[in-house]
Amino acid sequence: MKKESPSERRARLLEVAKRSVSNAYATEEHSVIQAINAYLELERIKNQVYERLEEWYSIYFPELKISNQSTYAKFVIEIGENKKAASVEKLRGVLGEKAEDTMKGIAYSIGREPSEAEYATIRRLAETELRLIEMENDVDAYLEGSTKKLMPNITYLIDYKVAAELLAKAGSLSRMAVLPAGTIQLLGAEKALFKHIKFGGKPPKYGVLFKLPAVSNAPKNRGGKIARMYAAKISIASKADAFTKRFIADKLKEKLDKAISRSASQPRRSNAAPPSNTYRKWKR
Amino acid sequence: MKKESPSERRARLLEVAKRSVSNAYATEEHSVIQAINAYLELERIKNQVYERLEEWYSIYFPELKISNQSTYAKFVIEIGENKKAASVEKLRGVLGEKAEDTMKGIAYSIGREPSEAEYATIRRLAETELRLIEMENDVDAYLEGSTKKLMPNITYLIDYKVAAELLAKAGSLSRMAVLPAGTIQLLGAEKALFKHIKFGGKPPKYGVLFKLPAVSNAPKNRGGKIARMYAAKISIASKADAFTKRFIADKLKEKLDKAISRSASQPRRSNAAPPSNTYRKWKR
Repeated sequence: MKKESPSERRARLLEVAKRSVSNAYATEEHSVIQAINAYLELERIKNQVYERLEEWYSIYFPELKISNQSTYAKFVIEIGENKKAASVEKLRGVLGEKAEDTMKGIAYSIGREPSEAEYATIRRLAETELRLIEMENDVDAYLEGSTKKLMPNITYLIDYKVAAELLAKAGSLSRMAVLPAGTIQLLGAEKALFKHIKFGGKPPKYGVLFKLPAVSNAPKNRGGKIARMYAAKISIASKADAFTKRFIADKLKEKLDKAISRSASQPRRSNAAPPSNTYRKWKR
Repeated sequence: MKKESPSERRARLLEVAKRSVSNAYATEEHSVIQAINAYLELERIKNQVYERLEEWYSIYFPELKISNQSTYAKFVIEIGENKKAASVEKLRGVLGEKAEDTMKGIAYSIGREPSEAEYATIRRLAETELRLIEMENDVDAYLEGSTKKLMPNITYLIDYKVAAELLAKAGSLSRMAVLPAGTIQLLGAEKALFKHIKFGGKPPKYGVLFKLPAVSNAPKNRGGKIARMYAAKISIASKADAFTKRFIADKLKEKLDKAISRSASQPRRSNAAPPSNTYRKWKR
């Protein structure tokens, strides 16, 4: 074999390094992480634009009461230019049953009509709001497809958006697969955890997992227990998703449901001592 | 005259109250305040969406360097689907002179091409970014027209967006007209001011007015002085805009420019004692 010159070796090793970076980014999990972060940001942005739109359009029609963001934006677009001129039919097209009530609201409204320049700007704001809502739905649809493909076991156990959030907090699927269940339980609760470690007080019981209805709707003192059970099964499921690629989630789900119902039938330990803060003791 | 029944009086007074609220909102200043707040929010939102877009698209083309947000979004829309297939002509259409450099970047890029679902989502994100940039420009255009109409004197002295921000901080034009110049100078620096009052330390020298190039580009130790001169003239101009509706800004501007150039020719008092904190002394 011909001996490599230093510059040839450099080129070859550079090529190897490039290829390994490429491979690391070849899986879809990176774009899932981007997508869930984009989704969480869009949710906030959408609400912010809606709040601005509502505050602004309140100058012209303070009596308007629509809690649905998309309907509100459509109202501004369809009827906002001259609300006094709107017919009941047009209102019904946007508002449905609430058209008659709103018609009365228009009649006694203390708001003035917007000027042409004002309306042009606020209409664009309403269109932007609709666009952001659409965009949020698009990202949601992408997330549903990609997470279910990437993490069939985890998404069988829990909502795909919660699964994607766990993935984003863990950093990658293979890293999530080697995390202990207790860490998965607290992903997203880092701030509360370190507050507990530094200053004492109650330790957090759940992070991202609080978004699961089974946890957030659990009776008092049960949420942490249920989060722990979920975390244990998610930990097993993530190993299957990352390494063996076998589908075992149906059996996990069965066991999980059984464990939860068993725990629900046990009496609560309402007089139990508060959990001792071992970190703090150790620190002192 | 027929005596009013209580219910008649109630209806009449309600009508009066409604009309006075209506009148209070009849001026355009309320929508200017909404518009400048929307503008400041859109600026932040636009940057946030751009950062997400750049971070996400970096999976597919980490070597891409475009500092212009709108160009970056257009690149993703036009070329992002399959960058390897892009011709130099197509690149030139988006990037201009930088097309050749980027062509080389594409050739040795370590990024993979996005899948169909990934591209569909990221393309929508880029479109949303473009939309937000457009929206920002629309609000800007509206602001320019409306502030110049509403505050001809103030906008003659300073940038219309800074004028709108001052108006938003003051709450209304008539309130701004009765504020002392020192308060106008510190509008937008409330937090720093109260920190100074409570804890001592240096008092703020400017708030919103820092956005004026004359203040932000001023040599050290001059900015506060120049902000004070501006605030004094803005205070006079706001009285004209709110009450007399006469145009006096050309004379004010002349005096302001003279005062600034006179102060620039004076020697700096570099060894002057630091300003005493009278609030703090009074508090103790």
